[in-house]
Amino acid sequence: MPTYTAPVKDMQFILHDVLNVTETGIPGYADLDQAFTSAILDEAGKLAGEVLAPLNAVGDREGCRLENGVVYTPTGFKGAFDALKDGGWNGLDLPEEFGGQNLPYVMGTAVGEIFVSANMAFNMYQGLTHGAINAILSAGSDDQKATYLPKMVSLEWTGTMNLTEPHCGTDLGLMRTKADPQEDGSYLITGQKIFISAGEHDLADNIIHLVLAKAPGGGAGSKGISLFIVPKVLVNEDGSLGARNALSCGKIEEKMGIHGNATCVMNYDGAKGWLLGDLHKGMRAMFTMMNEARLGVGLQGYAQAEAAYQNALAYAKDRLQGRAVTGAENPSGPADPLIVHPDIRRNLMEQKSFVEGARALTFWAAHLIDRSVRQGDAAAEGLVSLMIPVVKGFQTDKGFEMAVQAQQVFGGHGYIEEWGMSQFARDARIAMIYEGANGVQALDLVGRKLAQDGGKHVMAFFEMVKAECKAHDGDDRMKGFAEPLKTASKQLQQAGMFFMQAGMKNPNAALSGSYDFMHLMGHVCLGLMWTRMAKAAYEALDAGDADREFLEAKIATGRFYMARQLPACGMHLARIETGAEPVMALPAEAF
Amino acid sequence: MPTYTAPVKDMQFILHDVLNVTETGIPGYADLDQAFTSAILDEAGKLAGEVLAPLNAVGDREGCRLENGVVYTPTGFKGAFDALKDGGWNGLDLPEEFGGQNLPYVMGTAVGEIFVSANMAFNMYQGLTHGAINAILSAGSDDQKATYLPKMVSLEWTGTMNLTEPHCGTDLGLMRTKADPQEDGSYLITGQKIFISAGEHDLADNIIHLVLAKAPGGGAGSKGISLFIVPKVLVNEDGSLGARNALSCGKIEEKMGIHGNATCVMNYDGAKGWLLGDLHKGMRAMFTMMNEARLGVGLQGYAQAEAAYQNALAYAKDRLQGRAVTGAENPSGPADPLIVHPDIRRNLMEQKSFVEGARALTFWAAHLIDRSVRQGDAAAEGLVSLMIPVVKGFQTDKGFEMAVQAQQVFGGHGYIEEWGMSQFARDARIAMIYEGANGVQALDLVGRKLAQDGGKHVMAFFEMVKAECKAHDGDDRMKGFAEPLKTASKQLQQAGMFFMQAGMKNPNAALSGSYDFMHLMGHVCLGLMWTRMAKAAYEALDAGDADREFLEAKIATGRFYMARQLPACGMHLARIETGAEPVMALPAEAF
Repeated sequence: MPTYTAPVKDMQFILHDVLNVTETGIPGYADLDQAFTSAILDEAGKLAGEVLAPLNAVGDREGCRLENGVVYTPTGFKGAFDALKDGGWNGLDLPEEFGGQNLPYVMGTAVGEIFVSANMAFNMYQGLTHGAINAILSAGSDDQKATYLPKMVSLEWTGTMNLTEPHCGTDLGLMRTKADPQEDGSYLITGQKIFISAGEHDLADNIIHLVLAKAPGGGAGSKGISLFIVPKVLVNEDGSLGARNALSCGKIEEKMGIHGNATCVMNYDGAKGWLLGDLHKGMRAMFTMMNEARLGVGLQGYAQAEAAYQNALAYAKDRLQGRAVTGAENPSGPADPLIVHPDIRRNLMEQKSFVEGARALTFWAAHLIDRSVRQGDAAAEGLVSLMIPVVKGFQTDKGFEMAVQAQQVFGGHGYIEEWGMSQFARDARIAMIYEGANGVQALDLVGRKLAQDGGKHVMAFFEMVKAECKAHDGDDRMKGFAEPLKTASKQLQQAGMFFMQAGMKNPNAALSGSYDFMHLMGHVCLGLMWTRMAKAAYEALDAGDADREFLEAKIATGRFYMARQLPACGMHLARIETGAEPVMALPAEAF
Repeated sequence: MPTYTAPVKDMQFILHDVLNVTETGIPGYADLDQAFTSAILDEAGKLAGEVLAPLNAVGDREGCRLENGVVYTPTGFKGAFDALKDGGWNGLDLPEEFGGQNLPYVMGTAVGEIFVSANMAFNMYQGLTHGAINAILSAGSDDQKATYLPKMVSLEWTGTMNLTEPHCGTDLGLMRTKADPQEDGSYLITGQKIFISAGEHDLADNIIHLVLAKAPGGGAGSKGISLFIVPKVLVNEDGSLGARNALSCGKIEEKMGIHGNATCVMNYDGAKGWLLGDLHKGMRAMFTMMNEARLGVGLQGYAQAEAAYQNALAYAKDRLQGRAVTGAENPSGPADPLIVHPDIRRNLMEQKSFVEGARALTFWAAHLIDRSVRQGDAAAEGLVSLMIPVVKGFQTDKGFEMAVQAQQVFGGHGYIEEWGMSQFARDARIAMIYEGANGVQALDLVGRKLAQDGGKHVMAFFEMVKAECKAHDGDDRMKGFAEPLKTASKQLQQAGMFFMQAGMKNPNAALSGSYDFMHLMGHVCLGLMWTRMAKAAYEALDAGDADREFLEAKIATGRFYMARQLPACGMHLARIETGAEPVMALPAEAF
């Protein structure tokens, strides 16, 4: 049975040594001193390790069950959900006005990682609620906020997002769900939505569905779409619960993973709903929350890899098999532990260096969101909107890959469910798909974000990387970081130039390389993070920080990433520069 | 529900246009004319498409069930197994003397691909039997052959291989299962074996277990191991079935995939067994079958990718979502099919070019085994023994990766079990683990095969690739093949040189790069195959072959592989040349 320990020391290093949170001047950050953040993370770690992680395999094995319209979550989920609720965890980074604690988003992100690592399927009940809260916060009327937010922030009620229909996922313009306006200002919603995570369950008294639907007069395509609040149980004027709304869960899906979360087919049969935000501007209301939602999924990618890595590492230290090629390291035992073997070590280092790099990137992106939201910093907003497809697409691809590699350390024991390593891979797989499949992230990055605001944000990113490399000129200790980063960053720029030139003539030339570009940029981002982490570690060492082993491990892990993983950038560039021809040469009918 | 159509035309192209089987002079190959091979492959395809493929999802959903020591296979498996038996498929490439048809191994391989694509878990019951037959053929006494082979070749009885124990997989020297010699020349086998595929089931009257165990006097480590024939039901002198042997299935494992195959914990409680081959030479007896067993697993890798690809392609042509960036291609419909999008096309081309290349490599390796076994060609034997870790390790890694990519084409529908795409990925995953985990394949390649016979075989491989490139000098049509192949092959040689030089001083320097080397060599092998396929396609076009579209698609698919996938070689080389330091720098306790 896998175990999980929150990597509090690693998180503290990023918050305090790398991001220097208390020095940023962002409102609310001054309070985030070492003692305060450590108290929060330790407490979250305790809940995660003792309550959530032990339920992870239970949720996988039992799954959810639909009986007479009621969805039953796995054994223990209700108790754990109450613990989450009682701890006030959901409100951590939400406004005090509605019962939250108003801590910065970066802290919500760190705590989120801990909960997701411990039990991803379970944490989605809260995660979806968080997303729905953000939508109501950004687009709701005062009345709507007062009606729904306090109970959602406290987790008495949960929330969902309803976008997908059987025949349309990415292309929401094809949507068929209808909203018929009523005289009282409400709408009757009719249609079927699929893949609705946490669409029905037994954890809360009410579920607030946010549903995209077409109201009359909106025209064709995605322009005609509006967003509606459609509660499972109607809420009376006084806030008490009234009649059941005309909606139901028709089915729960059998899935590859995240069995503990109910993925529902939701049927809306003239359900009462209320417009959220402007009529026919539903897509815009959705997009405002997209950065945080996608960052949350990018986080799932590396958080699953972290949990898988912890268990792979323990197994590699424990399992005796074979002898080190350089001579026995455990001569009194029947064999050496797996970790002596270079290829096992390579595998573990790939996992470790990815997870720690991705965590730094995610926390950095979260801090940019704080900068944007709390300070109104437009440059930070532009930068983070550029980064988001990378955080989501690259991190979930690699997170899955690393969970698969962690599974590999166990040999045959990794394939049987008993050891729990299969679950990490199966659960991580979904993050590559939902919240915009990774191919769509790549399209968003290359087709939209690169050129956004005249290319200002990508230029700022390049300048930032250049400045980082330059800052270490002549510093021998940093050569193993600054030089590979410089090379990789030039390759990224060259790819961008290729898109500009070739894409002018043929848009397929850019889009054929979009996926490679997303990965190339992912490596540059992690290279940048490792350069910053190495610098922070050297500075702490120079300042005589007591924890030498930890800091030296950071530097060694970063060196591995720079030396062994950044060479992927050259490959991605070479692929990109072949353009559209190899990809598009074969006519569809000749496949 | 996924469907499967045997890719007979692609197989025929490799057999006849690329390998020119009838011209090879290998005994038995002269009969393999177009009509004959097409009759066999069509017939196998019929059984696969109509009987085996529809049971694939059934097997996944139902799994196997252990009740009172009896294992029940999923609904329909018994009927399908009888169809396989009645068709005489198991004996296709086995000696006539024992009821087989003695066709070349390359034909057994082609038919094997078809069955594995259709239903991997089901086909393992036969596949394991095939492996056990080969062991008895190579090491058994005449008496043993006469007793067991006819019934195993006909599939009245099946077979298993028992190696792994709870505390040892790769390191078999740690084995604890004991063999006590009896006065009548038999042994009593006592111990527990795990991960025994097809260890118990309801498909056949008897199961012939081949069990590794330690007999007295063999000394420590893997040298003391012997191989035993341990039948589930003892066989009387007259060949009829006698008493049940003292062995039982204690448990069947819950696994990530291949649910239709029973993975058993086997308990031997003083079970009667007979020595197979020489005392204390059990490992050697195992190794003689290893080439075919590992090739069979390498085949599983791309065969699952083939099945997944077929379904992803159909979905990409059918599912309407979004519009082509270059203008609507289905203007009368609500949207264009997925296949118009460059990133979907890239994904499909990666799958297609891998599968077709891997098929060529696998058939070529199988033909080398025929050359070695039927002609006693030592050069072919050396070459194939070099290739086997690549065929197994590279092809199963990529096969899984491509099955995951095929799943991705379906978006959310790929994650739910209803569409069957998850199963391809989950089933393909095991092939990276069993029959020597892929890290062990890489170790075998770099630690053993490169230096085998003084490096003769790898030198022969390099010469072969060089000659192939040279043969196309000045041929403009072949430039897109010969040039990237030349570059990649030089990178492979450079990696080999690095191992020789750095590995002398520090063996970890070579072993830290072993996994990258396996992949680098995999790309060179597939590059070589695509070069040969392109040449064959051009020749057929020049000769006025009627099937222009098929041949031109081959060339375009090959061009994609050369342009887009061979750049991975440079990345692998760069990683390899960083040596041991980045991988081994961190002390185990600092992880």
